[in-house]
Amino acid sequence: MMKATVYVTIKQGVLDPQGVAVQGALHSMGFEEVSSLRIGKYMELQLDTNDRAEAEQRVKAMCEKLLANTVVEDYRYELEG
Amino acid sequence: MMKATVYVTIKQGVLDPQGVAVQGALHSMGFEEVSSLRIGKYMELQLDTNDRAEAEQRVKAMCEKLLANTVVEDYRYELEG
Repeated sequence: MMKATVYVTIKQGVLDPQGVAVQGALHSMGFEEVSSLRIGKYMELQLDTNDRAEAEQRVKAMCEKLLANTVVEDYRYELEG
Repeated sequence: MMKATVYVTIKQGVLDPQGVAVQGALHSMGFEEVSSLRIGKYMELQLDTNDRAEAEQRVKAMCEKLLANTVVEDYRYELEG
């Protein structure tokens, strides 16, 4: 059993409308010190495998094929266990 | 200038329909080793402040008031800079 943590973030230079909206909401609530806010996804996967090298390769394939849209998003992942 | 990273995750025991859907999609693509998948949010904030203690307090307030729904979500954050 291994645990993978995947972070998917919007690429630098790509507009993040959700982040802009949340930043605007924070400003209107008095949190004016927030000068930039970007929102991404965070995923925790439990994998039925003990082969670290294979898990690494499989998680990379999941990211490329489904979890991230590599045209506008970056991803990174960590493996534990 | 400080950077805050906020992680918002769905509480243990609360159903994560988005995670279930993505897990199903991964299974149908042949990634059958994924035994559980939970999706959360990941936010990067730039803060116009150099006071670490104040930033800590302010980020906590942002999480409680807007960034996380504490009824069904947990949050944690890290401060840098």
